[in-house]
Formats: sequence, structure tokens, C-alpha cells
Amino acid sequence: MKAKVHVTLKAGVLDPQGKAIGNALAALGFKGVGDVRQGKFIELEIDETDPDAARAQIEKMCVQLLANTVIENYDIELDR
Amino acid sequence: MKAKVHVTLKAGVLDPQGKAIGNALAALGFKGVGDVRQGKFIELEIDETDPDAARAQIEKMCVQLLANTVIENYDIELDR
Repeated sequence: MKAKVHVTLKAGVLDPQGKAIGNALAALGFKGVGDVRQGKFIELEIDETDPDAARAQIEKMCVQLLANTVIENYDIELDR
Repeated sequence: MKAKVHVTLKAGVLDPQGKAIGNALAALGFKGVGDVRQGKFIELEIDETDPDAARAQIEKMCVQLLANTVIENYDIELDR
């Protein structure tokens, strides 16, 4: 089963990387660009075929490795 | 208008970051994890309200700044 995980900074957490992108876009002449936030996107292939078990396993991966849950949110999407 | 951009490595391009995640998951005891690929996820707010114009603008941003089109693909999603 394939899964997609989005790891994004929680609202209120400063995002210097997003800010840098916003500034670079402005410097390149793009107008009307507001808030920019950058997150991570992880695609993974797992052997587990049961959707519930797969989600539980990936949730564990997020908490243990993929996301820093103090400042980041994660979102799991399963491709059936 | 809000937009989401995914920037991912093209198929065939080595992904050491994804590989490192895969190895770390294995080291943590997760079994049955296959290929892992890591990409970038960028959320941006733009003033443009016409979907076609917005998409064209963001496409230009991707080519000029957000993605390295030699090795990366990008995917644009507009939140209406």
C-alpha cells in the first residue's frame, strides 16, 4: 500500500524557510504573494494491506520519526 | 486564493533523504517498509482570484524558483 504524509508547521510557529521563499518570490517580481509556508511531503510504500493497520503504523512512524509533534502537524493519506 | 504545491523528485532520480528515512524507520523496528521518497510541500496565499491566471502565475514560480525542473516535478492544487 502506498501512503502520503504531509508534515507541516503548526499555526503560529515561525517558518523562516517559507518566509525566505516569499521574499525570493517578491525579489523575482511576483506581486500579491501573501503568506508562504513550507512543509515536508513523504511518500512511502508499506507491505501492510489493511487500511486501519496501515494508518496506525504510519501514525506511529510520524510520532517517532517523521514529525516533531511539538511544532509540526502531520496528515496521512492512504492510496488504496 | 490559496494554493498548494508539491515538488517531488522525478522517477529515477536518487533520493538520499528518502533513503535515510527508510533506513531510520527500519532501525526503529518498522517492518515491511519499501521505497520512501521525500518531497517539498509549499502552501501559498496569492491575491490573484482567477483560477487560470493563478495557476499560470504559480507555474511560473515553480519554474523560476520552487522546483529544479531538471530533476523535480511539481504539482499545483488550487483551493477555491
